[in-house]
Amino acid sequence: MEITNTLTKYREEIRRCQNKFLTDRGHELTKVNGWGDDVCRRLRNFSENGKMIRGGLVLWIYSAFKGEPPDHIVPAAAAMELFQASFLIHDDIMDRDYMRRGSPTVFAQYRQLGERQNIPAADRFGEAMGICAGDISFYFAFQILTRLDLAEKLRERVLDLCFKEISSTCVAQMQDVGMGFSPEQVSENEVFQLYKYKTGRYTFSLPFMLGAMLAEQDENILSILETLGEEFGIIFQIKDDEMGFFGDEKDIGKPVGSDVRENKKTLLRVFMEEAATEEQLEVINKIYGKEDLGEDELNWLRSFAESSGALQRENATVNEHAERCRELINSISGISEACRKEFLELLEYNIRRSG
Amino acid sequence: MEITNTLTKYREEIRRCQNKFLTDRGHELTKVNGWGDDVCRRLRNFSENGKMIRGGLVLWIYSAFKGEPPDHIVPAAAAMELFQASFLIHDDIMDRDYMRRGSPTVFAQYRQLGERQNIPAADRFGEAMGICAGDISFYFAFQILTRLDLAEKLRERVLDLCFKEISSTCVAQMQDVGMGFSPEQVSENEVFQLYKYKTGRYTFSLPFMLGAMLAEQDENILSILETLGEEFGIIFQIKDDEMGFFGDEKDIGKPVGSDVRENKKTLLRVFMEEAATEEQLEVINKIYGKEDLGEDELNWLRSFAESSGALQRENATVNEHAERCRELINSISGISEACRKEFLELLEYNIRRSG
Repeated sequence: MEITNTLTKYREEIRRCQNKFLTDRGHELTKVNGWGDDVCRRLRNFSENGKMIRGGLVLWIYSAFKGEPPDHIVPAAAAMELFQASFLIHDDIMDRDYMRRGSPTVFAQYRQLGERQNIPAADRFGEAMGICAGDISFYFAFQILTRLDLAEKLRERVLDLCFKEISSTCVAQMQDVGMGFSPEQVSENEVFQLYKYKTGRYTFSLPFMLGAMLAEQDENILSILETLGEEFGIIFQIKDDEMGFFGDEKDIGKPVGSDVRENKKTLLRVFMEEAATEEQLEVINKIYGKEDLGEDELNWLRSFAESSGALQRENATVNEHAERCRELINSISGISEACRKEFLELLEYNIRRSG
Repeated sequence: MEITNTLTKYREEIRRCQNKFLTDRGHELTKVNGWGDDVCRRLRNFSENGKMIRGGLVLWIYSAFKGEPPDHIVPAAAAMELFQASFLIHDDIMDRDYMRRGSPTVFAQYRQLGERQNIPAADRFGEAMGICAGDISFYFAFQILTRLDLAEKLRERVLDLCFKEISSTCVAQMQDVGMGFSPEQVSENEVFQLYKYKTGRYTFSLPFMLGAMLAEQDENILSILETLGEEFGIIFQIKDDEMGFFGDEKDIGKPVGSDVRENKKTLLRVFMEEAATEEQLEVINKIYGKEDLGEDELNWLRSFAESSGALQRENATVNEHAERCRELINSISGISEACRKEFLELLEYNIRRSG
């Protein structure tokens, strides 16, 4: 079975667990007022459409060490997906992204609701409700973790790990915001630091370590998985940037070029800046952050990325990190060769993916 | 000792505990990037200036049942204060309130920072950073609770209580947002439901129940305190509305009339609406929600509140709920008469307070 299928096969289980939790919370919160059930329903719809990579990774890593995850492990994966929902809901407000996964984002849904109800400041209403929805989703994620049916010591370790990593992710998000809004150029180092924390540790190290921790693996294994996650994340983020830059809307589920429009300081941009003449640099800086970005401008950037050698340099970076990943994967002890093969497949998927 | 002193005497202890926690987190998060330490410093400064009512109540109620709270109980109070910081930080973004407790609000601080760094969209930068700061403060509050040095069963009960009540508070906040942005009139019932949850259960029931739970009181006591908290909250919120309406900026630390400017549907407003002729209603609706609200308009509302009988009706409501509070206080078993007196003093303070 291919690794993508391996991850996908857990989706249904995670979704069921998450839906059950959200339905229960909706019943409880409907006593407060009608928004209680409403927000749980929106969270359910929003989460259901996700790829559930992070939750899938938790269960897959668990299975790599200890066989198929029993029922009481699944909520840990559901919590990861609720964290992801919360971050996305808040991110979309910060970035003013109205579409995500081919549907209106949560704050955009509330804005539409406000418009239908003739609320004059429907945009601000949408933002405020979106902030609340993201907050609630964060509480739910942590609540699930505190209720995990585990030995006390293990649950404490799980909670410490998650609080530490989720806080770090949010601090990385602050850097991302700072870099996005600032007119200043950034260094390669700053970009790597961001990729390492916002994508690597959050999307890979945390699920890897969580899955292994639940499977009661030792610190040595956790430490390899921690570094492996950072390396995976750098590759994942670079590919993500690439798809948002060269891909099309159908595949990625959000408008192409939104990173450019949002003035995101991607690695590719840093490489382009480093390769540019002063005149070219001026053009680049005029295009990035332009709200009414045109197809021509995006195409100019695309061909400059290729002609300047920036894209090649980025591909070389991917290969370099992929090589480190292979070494790390080969150093993991206590897993079957079939499982090691799956790790390598996950790496290949990460390098080749296009949606 | 007066009850206000009783609450104040715990402030220093709570602050010390909170500062230690935030300093530790700052050191940890500085590894991610410079914003980690920065946000912890801002949270420290922001929280320090608060009255620490909720945290003080936890420790005071604990002491009412079990004597002076030992060191391992104090973090529970610090967590309440971090919840409060988080809610205020996010509220201020939703309401576009730039001043709080006589200082710039957290998102306004980031906006100022953005302006100093020549960030073009400094307002959006401020909002985005403020959303992150509030998120982090929520994580911290829950993290403190998961680390409480208590027997496992008790810690589980504490966590269940807090997750339930904090989620309810946020859902009540959604109602508050909905009512604030909507042009529709609201009913007395809707306002009471909001006051009960957003103020009553959050500011009083939760700290009351938490303090009593930590002091290992039975469900019967918790249930009385739960209802007492709702009653206290209704009075507290009415007085809060009153101060924002009749008070002055010096006492309340935020601009007078901001509730009017923000189109808040207060109980006083519902009473005014119910007492108004059609023409008066039109005037009221024109004044509420007006961004450039003038002193004359505010004064018109003030005198209408008195002449229409709305204020008297509100005072009668306060007295009615105060009477219920007295009955509930008298029904609490297992506390000393000195302690019962303190409860009654807290009630009186609640009724008479002016800042």
